[in-house]
Amino acid sequence: MHIITPTLLIDRGKCLRNIEMMAARAKMYGVLLRPHFKTHQSRTIGGWFKDFGIEAITVSSVEMAVYFAEAGFEDITIAFPVNLPEIPRLDELTKNAEINCLVESVETAAALARGISREVGVFIKIDTGYNRTGILAEDTDRIDTLLDAIAGSTELRFRGFLTHAGHSYSAGSEQRILNVHRESVSKMRALKALFETRFPELEISVGDTPTCSLADDFTAVDEIRPGNFVFYDVMQRQFGSCTYEQIALALACPVVAKHADRNEIVVYGGAIHLSKDSVFDSDGARSYGRIVTFDSDGTGWGAPIEGARVSSLSQEHGILSLPRRVFEQTHIGEVIGILPIHACLTANCMETYCTLEGERIDHLSRRAR
Amino acid sequence: MHIITPTLLIDRGKCLRNIEMMAARAKMYGVLLRPHFKTHQSRTIGGWFKDFGIEAITVSSVEMAVYFAEAGFEDITIAFPVNLPEIPRLDELTKNAEINCLVESVETAAALARGISREVGVFIKIDTGYNRTGILAEDTDRIDTLLDAIAGSTELRFRGFLTHAGHSYSAGSEQRILNVHRESVSKMRALKALFETRFPELEISVGDTPTCSLADDFTAVDEIRPGNFVFYDVMQRQFGSCTYEQIALALACPVVAKHADRNEIVVYGGAIHLSKDSVFDSDGARSYGRIVTFDSDGTGWGAPIEGARVSSLSQEHGILSLPRRVFEQTHIGEVIGILPIHACLTANCMETYCTLEGERIDHLSRRAR
Repeated sequence: MHIITPTLLIDRGKCLRNIEMMAARAKMYGVLLRPHFKTHQSRTIGGWFKDFGIEAITVSSVEMAVYFAEAGFEDITIAFPVNLPEIPRLDELTKNAEINCLVESVETAAALARGISREVGVFIKIDTGYNRTGILAEDTDRIDTLLDAIAGSTELRFRGFLTHAGHSYSAGSEQRILNVHRESVSKMRALKALFETRFPELEISVGDTPTCSLADDFTAVDEIRPGNFVFYDVMQRQFGSCTYEQIALALACPVVAKHADRNEIVVYGGAIHLSKDSVFDSDGARSYGRIVTFDSDGTGWGAPIEGARVSSLSQEHGILSLPRRVFEQTHIGEVIGILPIHACLTANCMETYCTLEGERIDHLSRRAR
Repeated sequence: MHIITPTLLIDRGKCLRNIEMMAARAKMYGVLLRPHFKTHQSRTIGGWFKDFGIEAITVSSVEMAVYFAEAGFEDITIAFPVNLPEIPRLDELTKNAEINCLVESVETAAALARGISREVGVFIKIDTGYNRTGILAEDTDRIDTLLDAIAGSTELRFRGFLTHAGHSYSAGSEQRILNVHRESVSKMRALKALFETRFPELEISVGDTPTCSLADDFTAVDEIRPGNFVFYDVMQRQFGSCTYEQIALALACPVVAKHADRNEIVVYGGAIHLSKDSVFDSDGARSYGRIVTFDSDGTGWGAPIEGARVSSLSQEHGILSLPRRVFEQTHIGEVIGILPIHACLTANCMETYCTLEGERIDHLSRRAR
């Protein structure tokens, strides 16, 4: 492997095991796994999911839906509130794939009903405590009103209730993540009980990587939509969602400078490669990534180096704090690895991957914009 | 202007005035303006600089140097430590442009001397207090040793000392930024005095947008390398480097949801569009951007709305907290603007611009990687 500039390495074996593990969990709990493809945005990686029989997917934009529909995915949920100016594109898309949309207001439902010419599935977005988007689960009057608006259109087919318990990301411990999950699912279950007489087929869709990795009760849930698990990352490791061994991405960065007075090395690899998400290490210091070294035979990377971290990022520079021994063994011109804090954003920054075997892997680029 | 998805609008008039202002400051203080093009990464915008007679530029990667050399820039400083695996590309590049490199170690100087076949300019990177890269200004022994290594090669032409006083970004007030500048320039001046007998032509290169916008003493400085000033942003406004009126970029985002219980709107426009840099507003709350509305005649945007901010970002979602009155006047499907916290990273995320006249503007895309 000859690294010249920052390169996002992907361990295909780890990805396959992560997919297999989540598919097995879904099977065990009797739910459909509809993975969120915003994490990888790659047709090649989408193909890896297909090998596990996964055909129904989640995306976060119309552009991404088009990209995966062109790759043969025919059952796509766009898990983002319908963007009114894109309704014509959405309508076009329904020619080639079964599309589900997210709606949370009567205005949007009405605009969608007016703007489309073929049937589209509609989930009502429910807020179970994340407070980002969606109707509060307790606000059944508003849900009722929206259901009437949806039922009044022949093009809109009500599919069910969808939530993203994104507050699991700030829960702070495995136990609290499980509490978020229990509370969120219990609210969704209550909605199902309330509305299933009128809509016997209604589905409950939940999903985020922390709860889908950790929880063991999905009663009344029909489908889960985790995304990040295909790669995992340092943040998920902090939540307890995964082990370091499961993290499938590492940014390979050439070392460009060393500073012996502070045991820091400078690498080519910065905010435009990793994104600026960070976590706090157990000693309270901010970290923009964990450091690994690559196996000399090109088969992957080792466990994160104890006491090492990416301590700051500029546009192209990464500053790595290393234990003295590792500092001394690392030389200018060599390549060192960084496990990303937030794999979805790192993949989005890099826009391509390279397997350990040296194969380039596609990523939905944003050049066309 | 018909906005369908998040679009990075650029006000060309503001850019031109920002360039003119900095060019006038450089002239007034008798220094060369060698602007850092990593901020815009655009040949079109590079052309706007040329209209002000600016021919010498700074970039942060070999790839960027190649991009601008192909556009006719023939005097380029790559303000990033030489990346050893890229020396062959660098050598290739010296065929078409006069290139200056940054060196801070004997190892790198030796590798560069071995790897290139034509003359290349070399600046020694000096650390005046930022502690990112460079030799500490006080470490004259190390500088001496490196100078010997450079002087021993016929291909390496010593140009001078270069610093980036990036600690101006964390200084916290205009007065402290000026202190950073004074201290930094004074250290560079001392180096010049120490080494100019041996190298009478040696140059002093400094530059970062806060100090270049605010300082009024550049004695002994030969060139300045600010980059961000072409756009400015909310962070620079907080430093006092610019006014809100000077900020030349706004991300136009469609409104996709409203939440009356918390006076929040949700827009299509998130971390993959803005990047995740943030500042703290005067009330202590974290802000990922200031909010503006667009003039109905398409001529631009107004002053930031008092009491409004981007309060959180997900991958594609932006959550905007608005005063009640503005909340009520804003409707789903409309477009609202966000002034970026850090314009360089937002431009890098978006990879293209759209002028107020509707013209698409290029950005060095990373698709080729």
